Amino acid sequence: MSAAAPSSIAVIGLGLIGGSLGRAAARCGCSVRGFDRSPAEAALHHADFQLCDSVAEAVEGVDAAVVATPVLAMREIIHELRSATVDLAEPPLLTDTASTKDAVAGFVAEAWGTPPPNWVFSHPLAGSERSGFAASSGDLFRNAPVLISPTETSSDAAVSAVSGLWSRLGAVPHILDLSRHDSVLALTSHLPHLLAFALMRAVLREGGAEMLNYSAGGFRDFSRIASSDADVWADIAVCNAGNISRMLGRYGEVLEQLREALDAGDRESLRALFAEAARARDAHYDSESAA
Amino acid sequence: MSAAAPSSIAVIGLGLIGGSLGRAAARCGCSVRGFDRSPAEAALHHADFQLCDSVAEAVEGVDAAVVATPVLAMREIIHELRSATVDLAEPPLLTDTASTKDAVAGFVAEAWGTPPPNWVFSHPLAGSERSGFAASSGDLFRNAPVLISPTETSSDAAVSAVSGLWSRLGAVPHILDLSRHDSVLALTSHLPHLLAFALMRAVLREGGAEMLNYSAGGFRDFSRIASSDADVWADIAVCNAGNISRMLGRYGEVLEQLREALDAGDRESLRALFAEAARARDAHYDSESAA
Repeated sequence: MSAAAPSSIAVIGLGLIGGSLGRAAARCGCSVRGFDRSPAEAALHHADFQLCDSVAEAVEGVDAAVVATPVLAMREIIHELRSATVDLAEPPLLTDTASTKDAVAGFVAEAWGTPPPNWVFSHPLAGSERSGFAASSGDLFRNAPVLISPTETSSDAAVSAVSGLWSRLGAVPHILDLSRHDSVLALTSHLPHLLAFALMRAVLREGGAEMLNYSAGGFRDFSRIASSDADVWADIAVCNAGNISRMLGRYGEVLEQLREALDAGDRESLRALFAEAARARDAHYDSESAA
Repeated sequence: MSAAAPSSIAVIGLGLIGGSLGRAAARCGCSVRGFDRSPAEAALHHADFQLCDSVAEAVEGVDAAVVATPVLAMREIIHELRSATVDLAEPPLLTDTASTKDAVAGFVAEAWGTPPPNWVFSHPLAGSERSGFAASSGDLFRNAPVLISPTETSSDAAVSAVSGLWSRLGAVPHILDLSRHDSVLALTSHLPHLLAFALMRAVLREGGAEMLNYSAGGFRDFSRIASSDADVWADIAVCNAGNISRMLGRYGEVLEQLREALDAGDRESLRALFAEAARARDAHYDSESAA
């Protein structure tokens, strides 16, 4: 495995994330091989990719392989990756793009026992409410944070190489401890997605879709992630169910506080909670835009 | 009162909405008088407005007056509006921009008894997470829906005139029955705002502001409305507390369904709920962008 940023890469799974990754890598001059169980028409015709017929063919001789399928589909892929690379003297850098890591770490442990030194988890914090290769873009990762989570047995060279790969694609690597990943993301990503899905559900139950005619830009932006791919998110939900359920419980407590304040007509408590929320959000996004 | 679109207008309250209204009206060639209890520096220097020292001065001789303050401040303004216009042979068209109507209807009933024929409620579904005159824009209402709610005693001429005023400012009028306004908006606007404030609260409780470093564009858009003005939203919350509390309760039931499905590992129920949500959202926004 080369410690330098990879110059050839296999992308397994050519949806929004995998397609974007392949396009960004090809634009950087990387040689890109792609594999998808059901190759999208667009991918088939993408001149920058060499489409392969199997995981084994895709990873043969590459510097790095990235698994970018929905998380439950990674299990079988990871077993195939092991078979294709375990006997190599210089196996490729191996990583994934999953939004939940405990499940993927389980798949790696199933396949290898002890995770191999060339495996490092990564999770680009970029996406779109649209899905599939047709929605992919070589710009998707530009300035996006990417969370890098080494295993206990990841080599330093592999950690550097996966960070280098994402940097080259325009992303900004941050190390996040593997044991914290799923509880942190349950709060910052999985909870808001479920809240947005739930809002659409509540609207359909309480008044039907025509209620949306009485909504404004706030609703549109709030609910954008409710247009996300249902299968991708069902995988994430079941793979991180414990953390997400716990966060939903904590969130429910905040909603109960709000209800009590509403029922008591306690304007001052409501104002204080709103002001604290606005301050915290502004502090983050103002400093981000100033950076 | 003229049934044609007003050519002179008084705007009471020069924050985001009132400022935008004045700017849009001035750009259409309307003569604009503005009044604010604490006139913003920017408003003072806005060449298109004639700033006045009182409600009475602002409304003298105008075709229309719009109350655009936070909702609780409207009570006193509405009493002043009555004093200034009740004895006029041709009183101006009177309207407001409040997000909750039961409270404002109560203020009108307090001031007049029977609402005057020249009063028609209006609610532009446009805004920004920023607030104050500095954030105002003459383009804020362009293509935005505006809900027009006549009282039982509004004259047809007044309903036409208030619709004409908003059309001239670029908005698209829709009639919404006054008795439905507050429950509909509790679902489509007030609930999402409170959910966004609550998410920031949950983030601060569960991990602190640095959690936001692990969030992506989904969180940013979902939480945008949590940057809204705390005082404006505290007024809205207490003025529509009953409906919002009821919607929070119904929303809590959906969250309980989600938790049960998560705890049971019921991927199929989760997928079905997510898919239904995405379909309903896409159907609305795809048809909107096609229109």
